[in-house]
Amino acid sequence: MAMKLAATSAIRSFASSSGISGSSAFARCLHASAGSKKIVGVFYKANEYAAKNPNFLGCAEGALGIREWLESQGHQYIVTDDKEGPNCELEKHIPDLHVLISTPFHPAYVTEERIKRAKNLQLLLTAGVGSDHIDLKAAAAAGLTVAEVTGSNVVSVAEDELMRILILVRNFLPGYHQVITGEWNVAGIAYRAYDLEGKTVGTVGAGRIGRLLLQRLKPFNCNLLYHDRLKMDPELENQTGAKFEEDLDAMLPKCDIVVINTPLTEQTRGLFNKDKIAKMKKGVLIVNNARGAIMDTQAVVDACSSGQIGGYSGDVWYPQPAPKDHPWRYMPNQAMTPHISGTTIDAQLRYAAGVKDMLDRYFKGEEFPLQNYIVKEGKIASQYL
Amino acid sequence: MAMKLAATSAIRSFASSSGISGSSAFARCLHASAGSKKIVGVFYKANEYAAKNPNFLGCAEGALGIREWLESQGHQYIVTDDKEGPNCELEKHIPDLHVLISTPFHPAYVTEERIKRAKNLQLLLTAGVGSDHIDLKAAAAAGLTVAEVTGSNVVSVAEDELMRILILVRNFLPGYHQVITGEWNVAGIAYRAYDLEGKTVGTVGAGRIGRLLLQRLKPFNCNLLYHDRLKMDPELENQTGAKFEEDLDAMLPKCDIVVINTPLTEQTRGLFNKDKIAKMKKGVLIVNNARGAIMDTQAVVDACSSGQIGGYSGDVWYPQPAPKDHPWRYMPNQAMTPHISGTTIDAQLRYAAGVKDMLDRYFKGEEFPLQNYIVKEGKIASQYL
Repeated sequence: MAMKLAATSAIRSFASSSGISGSSAFARCLHASAGSKKIVGVFYKANEYAAKNPNFLGCAEGALGIREWLESQGHQYIVTDDKEGPNCELEKHIPDLHVLISTPFHPAYVTEERIKRAKNLQLLLTAGVGSDHIDLKAAAAAGLTVAEVTGSNVVSVAEDELMRILILVRNFLPGYHQVITGEWNVAGIAYRAYDLEGKTVGTVGAGRIGRLLLQRLKPFNCNLLYHDRLKMDPELENQTGAKFEEDLDAMLPKCDIVVINTPLTEQTRGLFNKDKIAKMKKGVLIVNNARGAIMDTQAVVDACSSGQIGGYSGDVWYPQPAPKDHPWRYMPNQAMTPHISGTTIDAQLRYAAGVKDMLDRYFKGEEFPLQNYIVKEGKIASQYL
Repeated sequence: MAMKLAATSAIRSFASSSGISGSSAFARCLHASAGSKKIVGVFYKANEYAAKNPNFLGCAEGALGIREWLESQGHQYIVTDDKEGPNCELEKHIPDLHVLISTPFHPAYVTEERIKRAKNLQLLLTAGVGSDHIDLKAAAAAGLTVAEVTGSNVVSVAEDELMRILILVRNFLPGYHQVITGEWNVAGIAYRAYDLEGKTVGTVGAGRIGRLLLQRLKPFNCNLLYHDRLKMDPELENQTGAKFEEDLDAMLPKCDIVVINTPLTEQTRGLFNKDKIAKMKKGVLIVNNARGAIMDTQAVVDACSSGQIGGYSGDVWYPQPAPKDHPWRYMPNQAMTPHISGTTIDAQLRYAAGVKDMLDRYFKGEEFPLQNYIVKEGKIASQYL
């Protein structure tokens, strides 16, 4: 698909819900001394795919399209995909980097230990949305600033979730397998293919992505439910027709389809364990583009095998990249992909523009868009608490 | 997914667009003499899948759930999946059947020759929507009535089309292949994965299914175009924001995604040949759940191979079942399935109820719902002309 893409309309403006109030006192990073900075970016390598699309900015080769701009200002810009183990390329730069740019798609895990050794580190930027690969408490304690390109790929992820809902409800993959294996057996697909219309879809979390999903689900005439800490404003609730469920355990048994749209926090890590999955309808379909670690890996495998889960689709795993023997690769009724939903070409253009904007502000000592802050002046944004 | 399904709300009411005006003069079939009728149903066989779902009515074993009802009234009901060749089961019953029930999913091709030999035939019912497997001219000339369960699966098909659009735009299948083959290469997917937002989607045909698709596309913030013989009523045009394109050749070059939503007629057979496909954008994505014969089979293969078509998805083929060596099974960037979109469990419940309703009216000498008629009193419905 050769499309005209406009990076200019990229960064969407959303009402801030970061929970960080405005402040004119800048953190250490924004008082950074002028002069050359060492910036390290960790992105997935594209190899032969790098040259196939001029807008492919999110890979190591594309390097967000900011190399020339950075270097022309005298900054040093190291980009690598090599992020694991004591001898990796990233490790070499930990002691003297000022800024680390990472992504959720190929996460550079920023541990407390790495933060301690990064004496010059001031700023951690996530190219995309989702900074749980960073030890936020340790970052806050060290006075670092952590920021994302909030909103840069929420549409991308919400669209992808709706695709996965349909793939599971319609039982797409067994049909595709028949095609490529020379078979034709309509019954083998149809006996468990349904319309989405009339089904009950519940989202666990109704932040930016959850709300966009609900808006896109609206014309499908489903029963829409959402669980969150807070009720949506009445206008949006009215617009989507979604019903608030204060108690997650009360919502789960009602849902034909459950979509996970909550950040990974200490509260949500392993939330969907054997007990939680047992509360759901037999044959429930689950879509999870949030984070793999929100699920108990083995509980998902067991429930897919027993039929308690009728289908599981998502693009998030723990760890990432998923090892060759990750059991979700081989469980029945899965429709998984690598971590991809937030890194469409359109999303890359937006988060590349957002990172460049924040770097520019950082060099100039200016504040970031408020909703981008994840850690600021020792405080962690409320959605990560 | 274990769901409560209500057949009662099944048959949707749509404004009639069949183009056949009401008439109190009944055709031969509706003057049929009272007494026992021989009814033959041709459905796909489900074998081991038949018992897996009590609502699986659309298979030969399920037989639309009307056997007991028919036999209790003294009618004979033969059901088979064996529909091809001179010695097939269907052929045995051609000389003396009164009613033939067939489906688009496993089409019993009703040729002029078969109609000539079917001396007792009065009524041809399509369980579903799409009666192009019947020679409608020959049926009209013979004074037969042909009727579908109009509207019974239009939601099912429209949902499936949106799924296929997303599967192609998001480049889903290469990611899934990586998962099951133990790989992880985000770049190999991302270099041609896009958001649907902002893209131009054109539907060729904006009848019932096309309109439902446009309604479901509305929240995705695309540029929506439609080509049809007639402009939609302004309210619906306004509601979907879709723009009318009178000239198909003028619409095609604007579209990132083209969806085929036109019946198969003499005008549309082979419509998308090499020349037509060449008018589209390089890398266009095509979704076709209408009929396989609307495409020139080899032109699609060639364009997928050259990259002129960036992705092709649909569930319709010519002929059906698609032979093992059908080239669409093996062309690049396809996301095909067997003919499945209109035979979800929900759709089966609706079209089974609709067929039962029409048989009941036939036995009682009552008129069918007007929009269901495809051939009546020698006239063919306008959408098939």
